[in-house]
Amino acid sequence: MRVGPVEIGGPAFVVAAGPCAVESAAQTESVAESVAAAGAHLLRGGAFKPRTSPYAFQGLGEAGLSILGRSGRRHGVPVVAEILEVSQLPSMLDQVDVLQVGARNMQNFALLRALGKVRHPVLLKRGFAATVEEWLLAAEYLLDGGNTEVVLCERGIRTFETATRNTLDLASVALVKQRSHLPVLVDPSHATGLSELVIPMSLAAAAAGADGLLVEVHGHPEEALCDGRQALTPRLFAELMQRLPAVLQSVGRTLHPGVASARSVRAVSP
Amino acid sequence: MRVGPVEIGGPAFVVAAGPCAVESAAQTESVAESVAAAGAHLLRGGAFKPRTSPYAFQGLGEAGLSILGRSGRRHGVPVVAEILEVSQLPSMLDQVDVLQVGARNMQNFALLRALGKVRHPVLLKRGFAATVEEWLLAAEYLLDGGNTEVVLCERGIRTFETATRNTLDLASVALVKQRSHLPVLVDPSHATGLSELVIPMSLAAAAAGADGLLVEVHGHPEEALCDGRQALTPRLFAELMQRLPAVLQSVGRTLHPGVASARSVRAVSP
Amino acid sequence: MRVGPVEIGGPAFVVAAGPCAVESAAQTESVAESVAAAGAHLLRGGAFKPRTSPYAFQGLGEAGLSILGRSGRRHGVPVVAEILEVSQLPSMLDQVDVLQVGARNMQNFALLRALGKVRHPVLLKRGFAATVEEWLLAAEYLLDGGNTEVVLCERGIRTFETATRNTLDLASVALVKQRSHLPVLVDPSHATGLSELVIPMSLAAAAAGADGLLVEVHGHPEEALCDGRQALTPRLFAELMQRLPAVLQSVGRTLHPGVASARSVRAVSP
Amino acid sequence: MRVGPVEIGGPAFVVAAGPCAVESAAQTESVAESVAAAGAHLLRGGAFKPRTSPYAFQGLGEAGLSILGRSGRRHGVPVVAEILEVSQLPSMLDQVDVLQVGARNMQNFALLRALGKVRHPVLLKRGFAATVEEWLLAAEYLLDGGNTEVVLCERGIRTFETATRNTLDLASVALVKQRSHLPVLVDPSHATGLSELVIPMSLAAAAAGADGLLVEVHGHPEEALCDGRQALTPRLFAELMQRLPAVLQSVGRTLHPGVASARSVRAVSP
Repeated sequence: MRVGPVEIGGPAFVVAAGPCAVESAAQTESVAESVAAAGAHLLRGGAFKPRTSPYAFQGLGEAGLSILGRSGRRHGVPVVAEILEVSQLPSMLDQVDVLQVGARNMQNFALLRALGKVRHPVLLKRGFAATVEEWLLAAEYLLDGGNTEVVLCERGIRTFETATRNTLDLASVALVKQRSHLPVLVDPSHATGLSELVIPMSLAAAAAGADGLLVEVHGHPEEALCDGRQALTPRLFAELMQRLPAVLQSVGRTLHPGVASARSVRAVSP
Repeated sequence: MRVGPVEIGGPAFVVAAGPCAVESAAQTESVAESVAAAGAHLLRGGAFKPRTSPYAFQGLGEAGLSILGRSGRRHGVPVVAEILEVSQLPSMLDQVDVLQVGARNMQNFALLRALGKVRHPVLLKRGFAATVEEWLLAAEYLLDGGNTEVVLCERGIRTFETATRNTLDLASVALVKQRSHLPVLVDPSHATGLSELVIPMSLAAAAAGADGLLVEVHGHPEEALCDGRQALTPRLFAELMQRLPAVLQSVGRTLHPGVASARSVRAVSP
Repeated sequence: MRVGPVEIGGPAFVVAAGPCAVESAAQTESVAESVAAAGAHLLRGGAFKPRTSPYAFQGLGEAGLSILGRSGRRHGVPVVAEILEVSQLPSMLDQVDVLQVGARNMQNFALLRALGKVRHPVLLKRGFAATVEEWLLAAEYLLDGGNTEVVLCERGIRTFETATRNTLDLASVALVKQRSHLPVLVDPSHATGLSELVIPMSLAAAAAGADGLLVEVHGHPEEALCDGRQALTPRLFAELMQRLPAVLQSVGRTLHPGVASARSVRAVSP
Repeated sequence: MRVGPVEIGGPAFVVAAGPCAVESAAQTESVAESVAAAGAHLLRGGAFKPRTSPYAFQGLGEAGLSILGRSGRRHGVPVVAEILEVSQLPSMLDQVDVLQVGARNMQNFALLRALGKVRHPVLLKRGFAATVEEWLLAAEYLLDGGNTEVVLCERGIRTFETATRNTLDLASVALVKQRSHLPVLVDPSHATGLSELVIPMSLAAAAAGADGLLVEVHGHPEEALCDGRQALTPRLFAELMQRLPAVLQSVGRTLHPGVASARSVRAVSP
């Protein structure tokens, strides 16, 4: 499966990175510049945010999509963002390269049916209480609708353990890779909720056979409008990108070649 | 809160009963007749069915809504049915008295926002991995939108136990009754998945302080198109209705007076 | 099954009550007096306490057993206490009428085998992550050893929900009553961890078909050395005992007749 | 920490391998020979088996310990076996180098206190519903007793997912490595219950920062008296041992040097 210059599910491992939420053009551009320079293959960011409370920050909406799309184009990296409802589809298709279905919507069958009819790739996150079988059957809603460009994403399941935000289920990744042909990414940020666990879990995901990562990065995690506790700083993200190739090579894979444009790469040169 | 002749959340306990899915006019009418005669206050039935697999029976859709609405009117009992997406709202408002949001959609915020704007009561089921706090915050989406007619429904949560379909969390019912003013129903059918547990769990729910029940009834459970294993027969449903008043009285409550029209009540006379 | 004057598993419902831990003779005697006067049929209390941390209060040990045994005899109520290891058996058999196996030891097979050989009744709590099947098979270790006096106790299972200490699984009680001949008690104190939920869950347990309760009571819950948040005051315990008969009658059962001696009953007379 | 020629918790990664249960001298010797030849550093095997049902195979007991000890000495690899009760301590200390406390006994505080007093290393498995905090506090019982040679072992936790036997929680490994000085092994066999997931999860554990593995190997998994579905064949175990060094090197670690005696290594030469 190709998303612009990026191939997902092939021998090379891909990394999508960016802020949990698009908060402003400056913040998004700054994160985009640093993750592109560090070698991220896709820019992720949330414009429409599903929030447990109606009184929490809900994202910038359409304005956020434009900011995200602009940063992606500026740096030559395709963009991933979450879609919450069918009515958002036109603006999503306009600005976004990969449509993400979040954990809460994994069994929103109306949304899945609508996305089965588009020709954009869909990133389908596992529901936080969904079995592997339910996750694969949710993907069937997309495939059955005619959209074969489906990427799965494990993001942790809900258990009794409270030391981490969720429990990352890497065995499900290995299982799905054996029982299905679909590519599987891992989101260590939501899975653990703790930035200090993101690098070890990213390396573990690579060793377990995942096809890539979805990682949250924020310039100033302590000021983030959402989920700052799990965001990597740009410096730690760069460290992750430097450590991945050796682990990938050890299991017979490689890190996907860089896709960012020269402008972005120049940004981190002295 | 009133739904036609039925008051929910007052001192009297209410019972919604009917088939998991509307399968045909004959099946629905037969169940409606028997549950109305046994004293059910609302008729429940699924026209749009959320199914884990896209290849499973998906419900009769609009045709199912008409069948259900007709049976409800014929017997004088208001109707409850599940809404899966905003586009179903016009036909739902036309045929249905209480709009049910299912467990999978508890955090479908787009749907909740749309239902916050209507003036029909909403029955909000707890997600099968939702905490009590998340459940109450989902209700806030409805309340914040201006719809104050919100009824909660506990239907079991997902745990490691496999002997029952879910784990019925009656303590959450008592907790919500203490921390919120919203009425709470209990669905012992989905919670246990086993028809032989429905009566004991219904009586327990009544003793725990629930405001009512949502129970699945089918004329021939072994032939049901969905969830037959958890459906009561009309005979067992009548037994449940006969046993409820004593338990309710023991905790200072009563069973809501009957609402079915004479036609329905005559149906069970010799 | 008989324990002195108390029959467990017959038509009558029994209540074991007392402090989480025996803290002193005065505290134990005061609780014993009030629960016996309110009609409790057994006195429960912990002398050997299994504690998550080795640095937490571990119970008074042998001295605690003597205190408990003395209070039980003074008021004419048999005594229940937890046994943690085989070496405690002689002093337990000396002072205690019912040997409790706690949730953490449900699969301590060495302990179960030893208790299979004694002729004291055993109260087997469900492990907090044990399936119903595993619980019944743990009971088989006792039965297979020759001890047929086994009482089960549901005390909540561990789930993702954090609003309550555990999730009380009353459906398991109804299920075990249908699939086994063993009596089943319910411990609403450990199951919920919140004293305000103990009365509603006790009534629900009675309606669900449980054979009795195990309830924590403390004269001054805010000063308790363990689990004060879930302890009823003597006044609330007396309220529970007054409310149980009506619920039991509504499901065709009765509260077991009082067993406390006159001395105890006099204690609450003016 | 040293166990004979093996250092656990140092920079080098160690692998304990062997059958779930010692079934016979021939079976144990055959597995011991193959795992020692493939480079295993410790031989694991169960002589006293904790079984859910009293009617299931309970292990060979003392005879099993002798068989295991003899095979370990013959091949020059220290031996790990599970202890179920204090009374087994003398024969365990005689035959076994590392005493394993199984998941069911993680909070068997009497056993932990007894093991706190010996000077043999203890392998403490995480209970299948134990939080990381409870696991570390269980280790405190050993440390507080004076035994500082404690090795932790993550073996999967119990969740709603049924596709795997348990859910391997690798984030807990990374978390414990950050918050404690204790070495942590991973048991991918019990964690997944599926032999085809053992190699990917072993590599993931190595990448996540674990200090070693505990792996089940059986000559004929389909004939194993327990847990055959999760056992590697000797051939697959050898493949695992060949793949580990590259992954370990990629995260800055090495595989512990071989410890088996020449006799064992000769066994696989042509």
